[in-house]
Amino acid sequence: MSFGSIATWRMAHDGIVESLNSLEKGGTAGDAVESTIKVVEAYPYYKSVGYGGLPNIEGILQMDAAFMCGDTFKIGAVAGIEDVMHPISVARQLSHDKFNSFLVGEGATKYAMLNGFERRNMLTERAKKMWENRLAEMAEHNLSPYDGHDTIGVVSLDSHGSMSAGTSSSGLFMKKPGRVGDSPLSGSGFYVDSDVGGAAATGLGEDLMKGILSYEIVRKMEEGLSPQEACDQTVYPFHDKLTKRYGKAGAFSLVAMNNKGEWGVATNVEFTFSVGNDSEEAAIFIANMGENHTTVIEPITQEWLDAYEKRIKAPIK
Amino acid sequence: MSFGSIATWRMAHDGIVESLNSLEKGGTAGDAVESTIKVVEAYPYYKSVGYGGLPNIEGILQMDAAFMCGDTFKIGAVAGIEDVMHPISVARQLSHDKFNSFLVGEGATKYAMLNGFERRNMLTERAKKMWENRLAEMAEHNLSPYDGHDTIGVVSLDSHGSMSAGTSSSGLFMKKPGRVGDSPLSGSGFYVDSDVGGAAATGLGEDLMKGILSYEIVRKMEEGLSPQEACDQTVYPFHDKLTKRYGKAGAFSLVAMNNKGEWGVATNVEFTFSVGNDSEEAAIFIANMGENHTTVIEPITQEWLDAYEKRIKAPIK
Repeated sequence: MSFGSIATWRMAHDGIVESLNSLEKGGTAGDAVESTIKVVEAYPYYKSVGYGGLPNIEGILQMDAAFMCGDTFKIGAVAGIEDVMHPISVARQLSHDKFNSFLVGEGATKYAMLNGFERRNMLTERAKKMWENRLAEMAEHNLSPYDGHDTIGVVSLDSHGSMSAGTSSSGLFMKKPGRVGDSPLSGSGFYVDSDVGGAAATGLGEDLMKGILSYEIVRKMEEGLSPQEACDQTVYPFHDKLTKRYGKAGAFSLVAMNNKGEWGVATNVEFTFSVGNDSEEAAIFIANMGENHTTVIEPITQEWLDAYEKRIKAPIK
Repeated sequence: MSFGSIATWRMAHDGIVESLNSLEKGGTAGDAVESTIKVVEAYPYYKSVGYGGLPNIEGILQMDAAFMCGDTFKIGAVAGIEDVMHPISVARQLSHDKFNSFLVGEGATKYAMLNGFERRNMLTERAKKMWENRLAEMAEHNLSPYDGHDTIGVVSLDSHGSMSAGTSSSGLFMKKPGRVGDSPLSGSGFYVDSDVGGAAATGLGEDLMKGILSYEIVRKMEEGLSPQEACDQTVYPFHDKLTKRYGKAGAFSLVAMNNKGEWGVATNVEFTFSVGNDSEEAAIFIANMGENHTTVIEPITQEWLDAYEKRIKAPIK
């Protein structure tokens, strides 16, 4: 049987490599999704997910995450959770509950505490400095403060034919307290059906929840479209529709995999992702919107990777 | 031009009557949705929405609401908001913001306070007594505590051709702190596109968010199905699929209206709703699941209404 994993952004790559090793040995899609996301949540230099993520306007890191099982449609989700090392693990545990499986704010944090999840002050010195600098910039230049919405979204297929999807994000930098994006919202941030495939999103949550794009991509795959066709024919028409009806479409990028391990992406901004399956080794690609509702996908260059590494670790004054 | 409004549950009827009067005079769909929901939020005897709603396990009333404009796809939503008289009005105001338009927990309550929305202790004496009684029953009989998830969901069409949708709910009685259902989640709790139509849901949120049924009904109407066909062909196949894959489908009921004012509903439990348009006076109906994926819809009887009135106002010991 086939297996595979696809995830948003270059940051997902180390987790994807690890999860493919485990999938090859018969590991489950649920474990692949969770372990891929945990790697990103724990890495201090990714500033939009977990530890090291950038805080809200009050300097508090509030995180969103979700987990979905494509066999049963079980969903667990948290939004605005604080001081928890692995929001994705909390979401996954919640997915087993028939009631109360989506928790927000203090209630989510309390659940994590009562259930023994690792607590941590998730605000790094580096993130705090960036927050202080941005506050100063805002005061000086009257800038729109919002920036950075690089959610990790993962879809995995295991060799038993099961699929799962998951997301984790610290949301918009400088968001208002309690702001939630698309990441914990099924249909918008993620959707998966083991009989068909799955999809996950990253981008401006406020606009993604207007389109229900993850669900729509899965639905189009169910109608027989390839993951790439489903992504192209969902993301670009919605980009056009939103531009026409709302005036402007925020950034959004979607990844998808079907139940044969085939994959696709579509995006209206420059977008990196990591993907691998039983026949293709894990690799990072860069995608851009092409002409006539198509996506241009190229292998990442060493030059890009070097510049990225330098950028995320650059000293913060 | 046509106009109309449809809403979940008998409790919506007074608001629907009022909103049709206003739509007839050229009022907007957005105002119709908000005013319908405000009537229900303010009425102390409806125990699943706003003032008089039943609290969570800790005795705190936490409310969810959302508003969507079908012209622009603007969405505003709140979840776990406390001490606010009209969550729907907060959601509607948030829908105008490009960022931070979905707020949860303390952040949502803080936003309402900063923006001058009416604050109130939303827990009535009656709701408090029901909560105390349930705690006692739980201790005595080891009951599953969860009950009551009668969200108000409204879809309105105005004579200018614009449509809006909205929801408001105090969620599951005895829910865990921070629990969120489908009501504030676009695609699951509601969806509307003025070029097509809209839909809204009530039922077990944890299961509704597995199916993205509101979006799917709108999508099917876009393909040319009538609202009733779209409801039947969305709700019952998903009921069957969830029963097969998850083991059991919770209660769910959907209402829909297209951009001609035609309407439909589908439900897997006994379900009342109120609807009217430019050719049909507002009326309450009762719906049940029929054979072969159909819905049996009958006018409500005076007997049913009398029993309902008596039930919701029965003294609580």
